[in-house]
Amino acid sequence: MQTIRVETPSARYDVITGSGLISTLAPRIERIVGQLPRRVFVVTSPEIWALWGEAFAGSFAEAPIALFLAPGEGHKTLSSVEKLARQMAEAGGDRGSLLIAFGGGIVGDVGGFLAAIYMRGIPYVQVPTTLLSQVDSSVGGKTGVNLPEGKNLVGNFHHPLAVFADIAALGTLPDRELRAGLMESVKAAIIRDRTLVRFMEEHVNDVLGRDPKALEKVIAASIRVKAGVVNLDERENGLRMILNLGHTLGHALEQATHYKVLLHGEAVGWGMVAALHLAKERGTITSRQAERLESLIHLYGPLPPLKVRAAKLVAAAGLDKKNIGGVRRFVLPLGIGDAGVVQDVSAAELETAAEYMLARATELHA
Amino acid sequence: MQTIRVETPSARYDVITGSGLISTLAPRIERIVGQLPRRVFVVTSPEIWALWGEAFAGSFAEAPIALFLAPGEGHKTLSSVEKLARQMAEAGGDRGSLLIAFGGGIVGDVGGFLAAIYMRGIPYVQVPTTLLSQVDSSVGGKTGVNLPEGKNLVGNFHHPLAVFADIAALGTLPDRELRAGLMESVKAAIIRDRTLVRFMEEHVNDVLGRDPKALEKVIAASIRVKAGVVNLDERENGLRMILNLGHTLGHALEQATHYKVLLHGEAVGWGMVAALHLAKERGTITSRQAERLESLIHLYGPLPPLKVRAAKLVAAAGLDKKNIGGVRRFVLPLGIGDAGVVQDVSAAELETAAEYMLARATELHA
Repeated sequence: MQTIRVETPSARYDVITGSGLISTLAPRIERIVGQLPRRVFVVTSPEIWALWGEAFAGSFAEAPIALFLAPGEGHKTLSSVEKLARQMAEAGGDRGSLLIAFGGGIVGDVGGFLAAIYMRGIPYVQVPTTLLSQVDSSVGGKTGVNLPEGKNLVGNFHHPLAVFADIAALGTLPDRELRAGLMESVKAAIIRDRTLVRFMEEHVNDVLGRDPKALEKVIAASIRVKAGVVNLDERENGLRMILNLGHTLGHALEQATHYKVLLHGEAVGWGMVAALHLAKERGTITSRQAERLESLIHLYGPLPPLKVRAAKLVAAAGLDKKNIGGVRRFVLPLGIGDAGVVQDVSAAELETAAEYMLARATELHA
Repeated sequence: MQTIRVETPSARYDVITGSGLISTLAPRIERIVGQLPRRVFVVTSPEIWALWGEAFAGSFAEAPIALFLAPGEGHKTLSSVEKLARQMAEAGGDRGSLLIAFGGGIVGDVGGFLAAIYMRGIPYVQVPTTLLSQVDSSVGGKTGVNLPEGKNLVGNFHHPLAVFADIAALGTLPDRELRAGLMESVKAAIIRDRTLVRFMEEHVNDVLGRDPKALEKVIAASIRVKAGVVNLDERENGLRMILNLGHTLGHALEQATHYKVLLHGEAVGWGMVAALHLAKERGTITSRQAERLESLIHLYGPLPPLKVRAAKLVAAAGLDKKNIGGVRRFVLPLGIGDAGVVQDVSAAELETAAEYMLARATELHA
């Protein structure tokens, strides 16, 4: 078991990772809040609840009230949030109630946003069950939902009281989701942790074989990167943007394929391939470094084929919410284990990078 | 012109009240933010924009992008917020955009909430045009919308960069709305400012006749009360609850009449009548004080007749969002110019107070 502290100007809490957390939640939360409030709500998906509901509820004296979010990015909407808020109101939820978001990244984002706005904010706990949500989205307080115009266009910063990342939950995770989630760990390694780069290069089989020790090591290191960055830049005014490595074209890919073809991690994986190319072209990394890091990405692949035009991706990136006043902010790797943000990436450069990425996708799936 | 400083742990900004602010906004905002961002959005109502749009836009080098919220509590919903957010995204709104909420309380609550969640929060300015929103809702950072289950059940704390309360805007305010808005000033006087109690008793004709000096005095004093309380208790953990004098039964009245019969201020006016009775019964004020303060309320009436049963109001008060864990928090006046929160008001006591209020309504409209 490992504990990573998140400490920002507005919040201080622990991310705990290890095995067997789900079945021992109530006493762990009580250690933080004192007595549990009268009403505890758990926002979850029907699938997760079917698999883990009994273990989850077991540690609570009174069973939490389960609220269900149908699976899929298509339900990450304001109207889902409204439906859940109405159910909470009907069940007597008040400002002292506690919410637990128990599931993957979508459950975490929607549940966290619900907690952020229900009665102008109630406390909540994240219990992420996918690798992606454990290493990335559950840490840092970002919550939100999509609009038809783009991903995560409405949301809030609302930190949880704690995050419990139970490695045991990954046992039931489909292989494709495991590999997709590992893309965020690859990202963490590339931007901030060259030791993790090496570890992931050398332990591919252990990690993909779900060896608990190897997984805990990768997960804890990834969370440490995320927490370290968030601690320095809570509101994404500067440094925190490096966490978006691969996300500019990643989001564009997801948008252009209507969030139906690629898992988020897969889109980020391809986006990083493009970013590495752009970095090599600019000279912030050498050809050799670019090759090494792209190989690392593919070690945790296969990334799916891509059927989209580069120009469409560039256009889709135009509404990326990380652009301030139209300037294109872009995250570039600097050597191995470092990254920076540049503001002068042109549409042409972005298109070249996208072309490279699409060509690689064609090659690898030939 | 008067400037009142709001200073909380999370924000520091000025509330400016005076005449002629609407037509000089751009330079005033620039004094705060430096250069105006590329995209300035104004959330407003069609009515306000028809009356004031030209004056408003006049001081901007480039006209702000107007987004319209249809009037009425029925549009204070998450789906209105979503519609506005989509329009902002389509118009290229980004994290650096500025939003101005220009209108009454509903526009301020919806516009502020939109600013709180658009791309996880963008800066905004409040330009309240009704007395109610000038003296109350525009100050303090509370934003939100209604659910069918209750008023303001979802929202956020998000402070504006500044509030500009232009007294000139009140010239076009219907008389009934003026009187309703003054109920929040009466409330401010009762809970925190005995000098304002006296002033409002002695200057009824000046205030209702919209004498600018009298209005500015009442508005500035009311804002000062609100700001003073918010400065001490930003998140409504304790003291800030005294701002809810009259609101427990006020909200219940609005809910029971489906937000169609009473203006918010009128509901609060009646709620204060009930609270004064409860306070007198408990002995926190004398009969003489209760009579004096109730007279003050009626001086700024008439409050409309009420057709609802007391039991229904008590039930409606059960879901009031100020209740934590089922305990009934209730604001009681203490003498003249002070108030406190009690937690042990029983349903029976609440019903007695509601009965008194309903009897007074019947008497006054006999």
